[in-house]
Amino acid sequence: MPESNRSQAYLSDKGDIIPNPKGSARGVKYVADGTSYYILPGVPSEMKAMMEETILPEIKSTVKESINVTTLRTTGMMESALYDVLQEVLTGSKVRVGFLPGFTGVDIRLSSTDRDEVMELASAIYEKIGRTIYAEDWETLEAAVGRGLREKGLTVAVAESCTGGLLGDRFTNVPGSSDYFLGAVVSYSNEAKMKLLGVQNDTLMEHGAVSEETASEMAQGVRQILQADIGISITGISGPDGGTPEKPVGLTFIAIDYSGDVNVKRLMFLRDRRFNKELAAQTALNLVRLTMG
Amino acid sequence: MPESNRSQAYLSDKGDIIPNPKGSARGVKYVADGTSYYILPGVPSEMKAMMEETILPEIKSTVKESINVTTLRTTGMMESALYDVLQEVLTGSKVRVGFLPGFTGVDIRLSSTDRDEVMELASAIYEKIGRTIYAEDWETLEAAVGRGLREKGLTVAVAESCTGGLLGDRFTNVPGSSDYFLGAVVSYSNEAKMKLLGVQNDTLMEHGAVSEETASEMAQGVRQILQADIGISITGISGPDGGTPEKPVGLTFIAIDYSGDVNVKRLMFLRDRRFNKELAAQTALNLVRLTMG
Repeated sequence: MPESNRSQAYLSDKGDIIPNPKGSARGVKYVADGTSYYILPGVPSEMKAMMEETILPEIKSTVKESINVTTLRTTGMMESALYDVLQEVLTGSKVRVGFLPGFTGVDIRLSSTDRDEVMELASAIYEKIGRTIYAEDWETLEAAVGRGLREKGLTVAVAESCTGGLLGDRFTNVPGSSDYFLGAVVSYSNEAKMKLLGVQNDTLMEHGAVSEETASEMAQGVRQILQADIGISITGISGPDGGTPEKPVGLTFIAIDYSGDVNVKRLMFLRDRRFNKELAAQTALNLVRLTMG
Repeated sequence: MPESNRSQAYLSDKGDIIPNPKGSARGVKYVADGTSYYILPGVPSEMKAMMEETILPEIKSTVKESINVTTLRTTGMMESALYDVLQEVLTGSKVRVGFLPGFTGVDIRLSSTDRDEVMELASAIYEKIGRTIYAEDWETLEAAVGRGLREKGLTVAVAESCTGGLLGDRFTNVPGSSDYFLGAVVSYSNEAKMKLLGVQNDTLMEHGAVSEETASEMAQGVRQILQADIGISITGISGPDGGTPEKPVGLTFIAIDYSGDVNVKRLMFLRDRRFNKELAAQTALNLVRLTMG
């Protein structure tokens, strides 16, 4: 053990030690003049675990009035458009509403001391924009999609090009995803598209790697090879280079093959390379959600 | 255009407008009593672009003394161990040194008004821990590895299991990576390992999917199928479930096949699912860097 680690074993002679389930640096709770001070390490995952396991339950036990919070997570609609569609139902309610725009979606947080009011407003929002809501509270899109696949007993296989593995990465962030996620092929080169997915040379020559036809063959190819119920593919130009006047940076095709029924979407993403990758993966996940219904 | 977007077109009647190259909400610069106030939108990518294009150059032009900053980026060694190894060379120098530990590595930032002093200390640090330094300043590990592959004219192919596509995702975050990154196979199921990578059924039956032997066959398989110079594979148990006494959660094998020369590493990652994935991808990228020399 290096000498610099030893100092982490020193304990304060005042206050109470807060255990750290994720690391070696512990915290201290100290009360002075009726105010509680919680001193925690700066590593985010450690701080978070200590908050959840020790501090929040302790604070919660001292609070009398409870606030009901429900978060409706949406994707596929801009904050401003959501706001315009929902303005009417929001105006009539006393529930406090927060729009929390992220890069790939907007969370709508409803909070009130009156639980019925929150439920009523949530129902009204579902009626207006139900299809854009993929989950409630902290569930991620990949977890919601995984839950849907599991409930329906479906399996999925992925073929991705411009996203480079990000879509597979997202599917597999969910514990137990091996039950429905069979695998992915990241076909970054034309050779990989032909050898691993069975995309036809003629298709690539005639329509190009970024085309409706190639996306379609990629989705069908990976579904057949891995014998999945759903095949989903992404091919696009992430940038900053590689664009042409006919096929500019950001042009992306996403295809889904659901038991032989193929559907292709043409999209334009206008951000930088990393963001275009994230938008494409998000859109593909959402397409799986909407397709399985 | 929704009504809520129109308000973004209003301009302040005081101060100067700061252009926003990434979005529609502009900023304002306002000077009062000799203090400059810069008001910016909260979207991180927009704020960053406005800082870089307009505000930092403006502030820089008013500064007289320049500070020389060099950041040495390391991976594969704990902060405390780095500190112990470097203590001697750091003690003798007047350069200001900051250790910035991230989740997958530690950046060592050297700053001084004396450029020669910074260069001298950097050289001394390289002598002590040269192999753990993968890049300087803001270059990422995937960019440094990509630069190395490009300089040596090498190509790489990836076979990943527990990381689910994250290693391919990282390789392809670098613009122009299609020059050396040929593709990846995410073989989440045994069937995918056999069909797409040619892993032997006997190997899977005898040693299991998470084993030195399977990792080795995955790296060799993907290198041969995609005709790459380097094949790199990852197979492991990300958790939280799927562990056994002999093969606990976190056990990971990373294999590299460099032109037929195969090397396998056995690792234990002790964090949660997401962090285990990130550590495995980081370790694999670093192994490519160290192997090509």
